[in-house]
Amino acid sequence: MIITLKRKTPDIEKEKLIHSLEQQGLRLTVSEGINFTVLGLMGDTSKIDDKRIQANQWVESVKRIDVPYKLASRSFHPEDSVIQVGNVTVGQSEPIVIIGGPCSVEGQQMMVHIAKEVKDAGGVMLRGGAYKPRTSPYSFQGMKTEGIKCMVNAREETGLPIVSEIMSADKIDEFVENVDLIQVGARNMQNFELLKELGKINKPILLKRGLANTIEEWIMSAEYIMANGNPNVILCERGIRTFETYTRNTLDVSVIPIIKEKTHLPIIIDPSHATGDYKLVEAVSLAAIAAGADGLIIEVHDNPECAWSDGAQSLKPEKFKALVAKARKVAEVVGRTL
Amino acid sequence: MIITLKRKTPDIEKEKLIHSLEQQGLRLTVSEGINFTVLGLMGDTSKIDDKRIQANQWVESVKRIDVPYKLASRSFHPEDSVIQVGNVTVGQSEPIVIIGGPCSVEGQQMMVHIAKEVKDAGGVMLRGGAYKPRTSPYSFQGMKTEGIKCMVNAREETGLPIVSEIMSADKIDEFVENVDLIQVGARNMQNFELLKELGKINKPILLKRGLANTIEEWIMSAEYIMANGNPNVILCERGIRTFETYTRNTLDVSVIPIIKEKTHLPIIIDPSHATGDYKLVEAVSLAAIAAGADGLIIEVHDNPECAWSDGAQSLKPEKFKALVAKARKVAEVVGRTL
Amino acid sequence: MIITLKRKTPDIEKEKLIHSLEQQGLRLTVSEGINFTVLGLMGDTSKIDDKRIQANQWVESVKRIDVPYKLASRSFHPEDSVIQVGNVTVGQSEPIVIIGGPCSVEGQQMMVHIAKEVKDAGGVMLRGGAYKPRTSPYSFQGMKTEGIKCMVNAREETGLPIVSEIMSADKIDEFVENVDLIQVGARNMQNFELLKELGKINKPILLKRGLANTIEEWIMSAEYIMANGNPNVILCERGIRTFETYTRNTLDVSVIPIIKEKTHLPIIIDPSHATGDYKLVEAVSLAAIAAGADGLIIEVHDNPECAWSDGAQSLKPEKFKALVAKARKVAEVVGRTL
Amino acid sequence: MIITLKRKTPDIEKEKLIHSLEQQGLRLTVSEGINFTVLGLMGDTSKIDDKRIQANQWVESVKRIDVPYKLASRSFHPEDSVIQVGNVTVGQSEPIVIIGGPCSVEGQQMMVHIAKEVKDAGGVMLRGGAYKPRTSPYSFQGMKTEGIKCMVNAREETGLPIVSEIMSADKIDEFVENVDLIQVGARNMQNFELLKELGKINKPILLKRGLANTIEEWIMSAEYIMANGNPNVILCERGIRTFETYTRNTLDVSVIPIIKEKTHLPIIIDPSHATGDYKLVEAVSLAAIAAGADGLIIEVHDNPECAWSDGAQSLKPEKFKALVAKARKVAEVVGRTL
Repeated sequence: MIITLKRKTPDIEKEKLIHSLEQQGLRLTVSEGINFTVLGLMGDTSKIDDKRIQANQWVESVKRIDVPYKLASRSFHPEDSVIQVGNVTVGQSEPIVIIGGPCSVEGQQMMVHIAKEVKDAGGVMLRGGAYKPRTSPYSFQGMKTEGIKCMVNAREETGLPIVSEIMSADKIDEFVENVDLIQVGARNMQNFELLKELGKINKPILLKRGLANTIEEWIMSAEYIMANGNPNVILCERGIRTFETYTRNTLDVSVIPIIKEKTHLPIIIDPSHATGDYKLVEAVSLAAIAAGADGLIIEVHDNPECAWSDGAQSLKPEKFKALVAKARKVAEVVGRTL
Repeated sequence: MIITLKRKTPDIEKEKLIHSLEQQGLRLTVSEGINFTVLGLMGDTSKIDDKRIQANQWVESVKRIDVPYKLASRSFHPEDSVIQVGNVTVGQSEPIVIIGGPCSVEGQQMMVHIAKEVKDAGGVMLRGGAYKPRTSPYSFQGMKTEGIKCMVNAREETGLPIVSEIMSADKIDEFVENVDLIQVGARNMQNFELLKELGKINKPILLKRGLANTIEEWIMSAEYIMANGNPNVILCERGIRTFETYTRNTLDVSVIPIIKEKTHLPIIIDPSHATGDYKLVEAVSLAAIAAGADGLIIEVHDNPECAWSDGAQSLKPEKFKALVAKARKVAEVVGRTL
Repeated sequence: MIITLKRKTPDIEKEKLIHSLEQQGLRLTVSEGINFTVLGLMGDTSKIDDKRIQANQWVESVKRIDVPYKLASRSFHPEDSVIQVGNVTVGQSEPIVIIGGPCSVEGQQMMVHIAKEVKDAGGVMLRGGAYKPRTSPYSFQGMKTEGIKCMVNAREETGLPIVSEIMSADKIDEFVENVDLIQVGARNMQNFELLKELGKINKPILLKRGLANTIEEWIMSAEYIMANGNPNVILCERGIRTFETYTRNTLDVSVIPIIKEKTHLPIIIDPSHATGDYKLVEAVSLAAIAAGADGLIIEVHDNPECAWSDGAQSLKPEKFKALVAKARKVAEVVGRTL
Repeated sequence: MIITLKRKTPDIEKEKLIHSLEQQGLRLTVSEGINFTVLGLMGDTSKIDDKRIQANQWVESVKRIDVPYKLASRSFHPEDSVIQVGNVTVGQSEPIVIIGGPCSVEGQQMMVHIAKEVKDAGGVMLRGGAYKPRTSPYSFQGMKTEGIKCMVNAREETGLPIVSEIMSADKIDEFVENVDLIQVGARNMQNFELLKELGKINKPILLKRGLANTIEEWIMSAEYIMANGNPNVILCERGIRTFETYTRNTLDVSVIPIIKEKTHLPIIIDPSHATGDYKLVEAVSLAAIAAGADGLIIEVHDNPECAWSDGAQSLKPEKFKALVAKARKVAEVVGRTL
């Protein structure tokens, strides 16, 4: 961390600040210039609050050089993490995982039917929303516990581990008992109370990037879960909000190599929410695999126009199957299996 | 709502869609063009899910004309709402409210001291964070229940109603019992489970706009609270996230007249989070009053460089007092009192 | 185009508007509802100015259904365009083109040297900036005419057609005479006077997407060139500006299938400017090919740390060569050659 | 400027870099840490290209502390600049200027008529577009030289200096001869060739902020004009592009105090383009004045629904007059005249 002090900072203020930083266990180097004094902080600065230093009226700027996270950091944990989800493993050294299923669970038969089609196409996990975050209070809010039961039943019928989104901490017991991979949605990426609670369990967490959160904030949310005791975090990019309105969101494909450089966590891509348009899902999915993604989570529905939510971005099973076949070929040429 | 069907839509598909819409109680007009068929939907479309219609493969586009909210809408409730917060009233027809206080509660003496300075400067409510949403799990997370107690004590000493942020539904009882205005922070604006629970109480809610949420999404979050039974919502703009990094966020000053046109709810502005820089707070505060804001919520701290959070954007009491005096003059020339 | 009139629009105003639209050669259907009157406009609306209609005080909203462009539109010209650049053809039905070269031309020897390495690696065109748009007036502004001469010389030595950026209309003669593919940079995407002049020549134009321009605005800028007489436009996505600061820009990979659906023009990707970081260029390049891009334009420099501009995003020749080899394999599995 | 070198940087590379920086006239301090070596650069770094240093593979990060501009900087020129436009002076110490007029010049009579109404309302300059940047090549492109003549005639009739937008360098003579304040529009803010040419004249320039340009880039564009010899620059904020689509752009009101802190140049606000909606213009105008703006440029049209461009954001003369009266009162309470 580099702290720059203003030109006319009194010596006494300089010393006060230096003393307070040294007391926090940091080593400092001081460079005196004509316009600025520069303090270089050496040591573990991950627990230093840069905004607090910035508040000092003699501080011109504070620049962090080390990353503010530790447990999620590649430098702290150089090997790729492998996360176990039921009988499936997720990670850089593992086969690419394909997760398919409807946006919302709509019933028991429907889930079994789609689960079989997902499995048949090459999918290895089943997604389905039982608790649904909807912009409007008047939209369908999910089948809730009934929906979770439909998912469990579909797992029993097909063996596919199940992924579903949690929206509040009071449902953690239900999810721990029933769900194999607990999803934190984009809107809850900085619901820190929920993250802390999910840090106390050991089920794997699928942490989606927030609508307008930076890569660093996203990793910090993973750090929340990990710092509370749960190292089993899979990151999921689902598009960010930009000025462009043609697509629902803008997929930031460059996060794939960035996450792999900065962290040891697996990263999967959600092309359905990223684009909001089923016609774009295949191209974006292949792009993600080519860029090194460890998996895809894709909305699949037999009858998109009747879907209770997000039909416009759902693939019919035959299109999903064709996509998986193409993704497998791309995976092979970039040195992965699927 | 206007639905455009693709050129070659089979008659049977057209009829199916029309039938399904009519069954939802809507009246339709059908215009046949060369390239498109256009369906105009008349009636209450606030409960129609446009994304679901969009999923129909024969639908080219769906355009909403009526707003998707009802209880928050100015057309449903033409008079300005007045929200009672302790002994203070907030609304278009009421005096402008000035809320001051530290980002984080740091102790009992400190809160009483700042509360007195806020009151002395002309503030009518006291803010203070006891539960703090922090990007890093290693940053100070708030004094929690102890912090709420310090706030209550400061209210007893000064008579100022107190505002504090809630981060999870399990604390609602504590907030209902102790806090006068319950704040939902930007990161929880779409924590729908929390919003639903806050709809079941009747304490007033200060609903901050999310980092990257549209005005419509923000009003829909107010609608969540109102649809669950609590009409006491005050909206708070605190800056949105843009490409500009010089300021912490970008204050969208135009939301003030927009919220007043679209809804009947009061709107207040948070210049401290909007700018992240105490030097900009006064200019932005005066701008907000000139544009018609019903209030300001401003961070005040005796010793910003020692603040446990957000010191860089906190005003010292004497600057806060000077700001209130100037804001009063601007209020008067735009026909308001303060 | 769908025009919605406000509830209380006087009949006389309705008739005036309908009459004025009919005079512009459009056919109208009128649907009377309780809250709104809806006018459906049939015919060629590409020359109707929707903002002008919006200015009518009785108009609630104007929604365009047909696209506002014509010559660039896939529906107007269903077959893929093939653009001839020197001896190279660019388009959906042609081999993928790889363009390599330095950000800035730095001298004659250097250009010949890099040109040979680009060709050796599999590149089919040479890029190089002679006129440089730089944020600072104090940064190197390009070798100008000398730079163009170095490019021409490198073409003579290698046979590679050359691509260079034009910054002002007064240089068009120089570019027509010397350059094979004239690039319009992101900052000039809406320099309409330049676009009009480039429409009067018949050299192919490489039109980069602006920093914060929508897909529709970008296509409209192509339309400017085409409407002035030059159909030879190649589109180039180079990342858009978002809130994320980790990368220089955010590559919008979904534009590849969108451009192919909406237009008949070729689209190539610039992973160097999109990311600003050479470590990310390979992953993003492979993603672009997998998503269907018709080409890549990549910065290559022998000695990036000595590059006169944009060294941080330049690949060394050996890395470029490795990238092309991988891109070839990805191209094959998505049914293209390279 | 602070340069951080990677941990394992060889001594020889360190020395090479230090030597090259010293040769550019800079003084350096070197701090050796465990993870990083930190170089502090003292001296005039405004001409150092930080991206070029970043390209060195041993460089971890480059952080600029001094601003990259000089002539526009408040520290270089502490007093407020006063810019003379015809008989009007613009600056922090001068009366606030109100500029009114139509988006597009539509004829001689119309211009004289509006000019009189602008003057009558308290306006001191007349705006009007003769060359129009339009997204569509099929939209009205302006009356061009005829339009400039209409503006000149309106000046003769009213004495108001005239403001008009230039779109290409080949029209500079026409503008120098006829126009009092030459506007560079948002889309040309980084048309560097145009900026350089405008630096060679001494007419004042109204430099609008680009759609998605940072404050620093905007000041750098002013620096382009100033570094080429023309110190007469007035900055104009007209809203930036964000994810919010309700308004045409988002006015960044905080730029007013920021520009005043960082530069000595006057800043005026364009509420018409910032909002795109005449109903919002008054509130946003008063906000700008309250925040310290040195002027407003507002679209005024007698008959907005017949305006040839941007009618939706134009005020009728009586509304403009009412706005000016209110703005005057706000100006007074913030210590300015108008």
